[in-house]
Amino acid sequence: MIIVMKQSATQDEVNNVIARLEKLGLSAHLSQGKDRTIIGAVGDVSGLQEKPLQSWGGVESVLRVMKPFKLASRDFHPQDTLITVGERTVGSGDFHVIAGPCSVEGREMTLELAHAVKEAGAAFLRGGAFKPRTSPYSFQGLEEEGLKYLAEAREETGLPVVTELMDPRDLPLVSEYADVIQIGARNMQNFRLLREVGAQEKPVLLKRGHSASLVDLLLSAEYVLHQGNSMVMLCERGIRTFETYTRNTLDLSAVPALRELTHLPVFVDPSHAVGLWNLVSPMARGAVAVGADGIMVEVHNRPAEALSDGPQSLKPERFRELMSELKRIADAVGKKLPGYEEARARL
Amino acid sequence: MIIVMKQSATQDEVNNVIARLEKLGLSAHLSQGKDRTIIGAVGDVSGLQEKPLQSWGGVESVLRVMKPFKLASRDFHPQDTLITVGERTVGSGDFHVIAGPCSVEGREMTLELAHAVKEAGAAFLRGGAFKPRTSPYSFQGLEEEGLKYLAEAREETGLPVVTELMDPRDLPLVSEYADVIQIGARNMQNFRLLREVGAQEKPVLLKRGHSASLVDLLLSAEYVLHQGNSMVMLCERGIRTFETYTRNTLDLSAVPALRELTHLPVFVDPSHAVGLWNLVSPMARGAVAVGADGIMVEVHNRPAEALSDGPQSLKPERFRELMSELKRIADAVGKKLPGYEEARARL
Amino acid sequence: MIIVMKQSATQDEVNNVIARLEKLGLSAHLSQGKDRTIIGAVGDVSGLQEKPLQSWGGVESVLRVMKPFKLASRDFHPQDTLITVGERTVGSGDFHVIAGPCSVEGREMTLELAHAVKEAGAAFLRGGAFKPRTSPYSFQGLEEEGLKYLAEAREETGLPVVTELMDPRDLPLVSEYADVIQIGARNMQNFRLLREVGAQEKPVLLKRGHSASLVDLLLSAEYVLHQGNSMVMLCERGIRTFETYTRNTLDLSAVPALRELTHLPVFVDPSHAVGLWNLVSPMARGAVAVGADGIMVEVHNRPAEALSDGPQSLKPERFRELMSELKRIADAVGKKLPGYEEARARL
Amino acid sequence: MIIVMKQSATQDEVNNVIARLEKLGLSAHLSQGKDRTIIGAVGDVSGLQEKPLQSWGGVESVLRVMKPFKLASRDFHPQDTLITVGERTVGSGDFHVIAGPCSVEGREMTLELAHAVKEAGAAFLRGGAFKPRTSPYSFQGLEEEGLKYLAEAREETGLPVVTELMDPRDLPLVSEYADVIQIGARNMQNFRLLREVGAQEKPVLLKRGHSASLVDLLLSAEYVLHQGNSMVMLCERGIRTFETYTRNTLDLSAVPALRELTHLPVFVDPSHAVGLWNLVSPMARGAVAVGADGIMVEVHNRPAEALSDGPQSLKPERFRELMSELKRIADAVGKKLPGYEEARARL
Repeated sequence: MIIVMKQSATQDEVNNVIARLEKLGLSAHLSQGKDRTIIGAVGDVSGLQEKPLQSWGGVESVLRVMKPFKLASRDFHPQDTLITVGERTVGSGDFHVIAGPCSVEGREMTLELAHAVKEAGAAFLRGGAFKPRTSPYSFQGLEEEGLKYLAEAREETGLPVVTELMDPRDLPLVSEYADVIQIGARNMQNFRLLREVGAQEKPVLLKRGHSASLVDLLLSAEYVLHQGNSMVMLCERGIRTFETYTRNTLDLSAVPALRELTHLPVFVDPSHAVGLWNLVSPMARGAVAVGADGIMVEVHNRPAEALSDGPQSLKPERFRELMSELKRIADAVGKKLPGYEEARARL
Repeated sequence: MIIVMKQSATQDEVNNVIARLEKLGLSAHLSQGKDRTIIGAVGDVSGLQEKPLQSWGGVESVLRVMKPFKLASRDFHPQDTLITVGERTVGSGDFHVIAGPCSVEGREMTLELAHAVKEAGAAFLRGGAFKPRTSPYSFQGLEEEGLKYLAEAREETGLPVVTELMDPRDLPLVSEYADVIQIGARNMQNFRLLREVGAQEKPVLLKRGHSASLVDLLLSAEYVLHQGNSMVMLCERGIRTFETYTRNTLDLSAVPALRELTHLPVFVDPSHAVGLWNLVSPMARGAVAVGADGIMVEVHNRPAEALSDGPQSLKPERFRELMSELKRIADAVGKKLPGYEEARARL
Repeated sequence: MIIVMKQSATQDEVNNVIARLEKLGLSAHLSQGKDRTIIGAVGDVSGLQEKPLQSWGGVESVLRVMKPFKLASRDFHPQDTLITVGERTVGSGDFHVIAGPCSVEGREMTLELAHAVKEAGAAFLRGGAFKPRTSPYSFQGLEEEGLKYLAEAREETGLPVVTELMDPRDLPLVSEYADVIQIGARNMQNFRLLREVGAQEKPVLLKRGHSASLVDLLLSAEYVLHQGNSMVMLCERGIRTFETYTRNTLDLSAVPALRELTHLPVFVDPSHAVGLWNLVSPMARGAVAVGADGIMVEVHNRPAEALSDGPQSLKPERFRELMSELKRIADAVGKKLPGYEEARARL
Repeated sequence: MIIVMKQSATQDEVNNVIARLEKLGLSAHLSQGKDRTIIGAVGDVSGLQEKPLQSWGGVESVLRVMKPFKLASRDFHPQDTLITVGERTVGSGDFHVIAGPCSVEGREMTLELAHAVKEAGAAFLRGGAFKPRTSPYSFQGLEEEGLKYLAEAREETGLPVVTELMDPRDLPLVSEYADVIQIGARNMQNFRLLREVGAQEKPVLLKRGHSASLVDLLLSAEYVLHQGNSMVMLCERGIRTFETYTRNTLDLSAVPALRELTHLPVFVDPSHAVGLWNLVSPMARGAVAVGADGIMVEVHNRPAEALSDGPQSLKPERFRELMSELKRIADAVGKKLPGYEEARARL
């Protein structure tokens, strides 16, 4: 922790900072420059993290040298975290595709799509039963009924189910059906929800918020890890910028950046990021090439009638093409696509 | 609802759009331009709002002419909404100051600050008992104990209490103590929470999310209104931009813009927006000048020891000065500051 | 200058950084923490500013303690810069209004508007003869003809002229007619242009770029100051954010923030920021309240026929009302509006 | 062009809009909805583009159906533009790598790097002789001396030279040496510069501005095309967002989006976008996978001593590895890398 004093700081203000640090059991390391005095706090500074140092008299700025997240940091956990779900291991270098409809809209479409994405090579089935919708007039999800269809689809296909939890009160219900619990972008800083999924045993797919920095995302992951659940999969899904052609701006550089900062696996959701189906495939290809552990992609058999996110959903035939494109790029970067390879083998 | 067809759209695609509209009970109004065909959907288009029109073959873009919020819109409710809390009426043209500590840290500081802000002219007491904190290692609030101190402070000062609700499960507890229930920026799109506060009777202070457009904010208000609670106070608190000198960028133009779009009252929280105490007073003055219904401001007796948001908190003496500055500007723009005027009268 | 070494940095890497610093005539101040080594560079670090320290082996991050601008910084020039243009002194605490059409569209409209804004209390006349337009199909300005009308308007009204320079080759021409040379937002980082206006003697009004941080803006001012021209007036005019209701997001907090960082005067252009005439007046009022030295506002006699920026232009009668609103707020915050006061006195 | 009237618009206001349209030689197509009147302007609306329709009485909003750029639009020019520079053809589906130092710092480093990047498979040599630097205290480029070293490097290696033009007065000089003239992000809206490079015959590499939307970028390209130069290569180089871990946020979705909007080739500059050398290679791989026509990448033999952009420069050996990674992905997506293939053949 480095404290930079204002040019106008008095000796009293400097002494006062030193005294406060010493009171906290730290030693102060003084560096008197030409124009500024700089004070390093040496010792166990974890207690300092929460102190409002910028309110101390004469302080201009504070540099927190330590990253604010610990459990999520690669510094203290250099090896990649592996998360096993059914037959799949996430984080091991393989590439996994989570696919399915945005919302579960009915039994038949769910089963039909589950079979279609499995045959195309998906490793997980996605589908929302609880839908966070910007407008109260939008379809809000089939709730438990939807979860049941997902479970039935899993039974038929063997694909593990990824589905969103919005409300802590639904946790018992959702965890009964889900294999991976998704926390959506809008709930990335719903800290109570994070603590709850941290205190249970299902893996968590945590999506980056629309205006969340990478550090914010890792602090949200830290909430989950801190409760004891070490199985967190991060998911980049686009951030909000001034560009309006795409729904959000997909930050693919988050993938290699997170790879450096953390040991947790990183997924990419190109569908929500771009919001336009014809941009989904290129961005999915980009996700493999930059080193993601997988993608999450929306597939719908009748996008023109979808109850949510129709414009960004791929039809099953386009999804099949995408899978073979992904396979070629995965080969080029030395990754395996186990779902795809098994699907090919079954043919 | 206007549907712009692609230049390359075929006659079949145009016919298909018309057929779909007619199947929905609408009539299609065709306008064949030099380069584009444009189709207007005429009739009750509310059912169209949720259709994925952009997925329909040959469609280039869709203009939704109607605003997506209705209950919050000034179009259908031209007169200002008035919200009465104790002796105060919000939305009537008066200016109200909500002041107090960021977090309730203890009994004595809460009572001391409540008296201080009341004497300075505040109309409401703020204080967080449940704190949404970016890091799990930060102080998370005193919870019920904090609510009790707030209630005690209200009893002593008569100031109504504004406090945050983070989790739907705490609603019974929080509404027992709060006069106004605050929904924080991070929960602006926690739609389940919005529905719950919409189904109860306390007024709601809804803060704008870090990356929420004005339309997003009004759609979140619509969730509350739609459940039957018409007492929603909006609060601009800064949006996330590339600028890092301030914590967020306070969008004061949101105040006159919301005044046009909606009948709901609009507050401004300069403290969270700028994050630096010495910018709080100028921005609070700006809030009166642009026409806000009030501000929400953090006051702390020992900012250098605050458990949250110390750097942006005003000391009570600085808050008193601010109140007299606000009074002069309120006079200049023809607004009353009833809390201040009564406080002066008591002296 | 503080250099934070990676946790994984070797002793060799630490030694190498020390050796490099010493080679540059600096002494290295070592602070060995529990998890990180931190190296302070002590001495005249100005030569270090440009070194790619982050490329040095083992370096994690670098904190540049010194502000990167010197001439623009209040640290080394605590008193406010005063800029005298004709009878007006900018930066002295008075509030000045620069008003006129976006573009000079003809002789008559220019003269008519010049008289109108003068009678209403403006202190400067604005008008563009060279127009930076996003589209090549838009009106690009009357060029020298426009400058002549501005000069004629100055002769008739006595109002000094503020007009934009876009191309260094036009500097002789523009400075023949202008009293203040405006550098537009799109040219804020046209460094050659900045150097040219720094090497001549007319005051410069420098507008903040759409994505320029306050530090970027001050570095651009530094280019001008560094060439010897100390008369720089800064102008906040909105930054680009995700919000689309307004054309840009007016960052009024830039005013008090710049007040701290620099001694240069600060104007606000609410017209370009919001892009909607009915939001201009509230934001202009806000600008006085937050402490700006003046505003720049677009006035047009026939906005519905304006060749540029019609939607955000005030009609002369609305501008007159605005001036009296500004006067009341200026009184409330202890500022004078000399243009307005003289106009009233002339009546 | 669609004009949406306010709900409160009077019949007179509607009639007035119709009359104005008819005066402009257009016919008005009226659509009277339940809550709104909508007016379509039919005929040659190009004259309407610049009219301030939003200032017309009673108008709520205006939808410009036509894209504001024509020459750059794929609508009127469906086939890809091919640009031939020496032996290379850009836009034909091949992938080209432009590589070299950020700044030309001296003769030897330039020659050494030119040979190194050629041997590794680059197709063009980059290097700045005129440098747009945020601070006046930074290295500003070797100017003509630098251009001469680039020309010498071209002579030795055969690589065509891409170098930046900042000032219209330097155009004769720069075009004497450059094969492709680069317009930097900060000059993307320096419209005078755009017109000048539009009126000469060298191809132009136009970089996206920090806060430029895709439409803005295409309007800037339109300035060049409109002057008669059809050889414009676009370059995505990161936009400014709230994320600070990377220097900018690389918007790889711009590549497929531009592919739809325009026939012009699209490059990606991962170096400036991320600002950290270790993220450059993954993002370069992503660029191939999403379909770019090439990348522009900074290579330096001694990044720790670079006069600009050291932290984001690759060392030649790392660049060689990158080239072979790119080759594998290019193969996977069916693109050729002619520079690389020829370099391998020469070995």
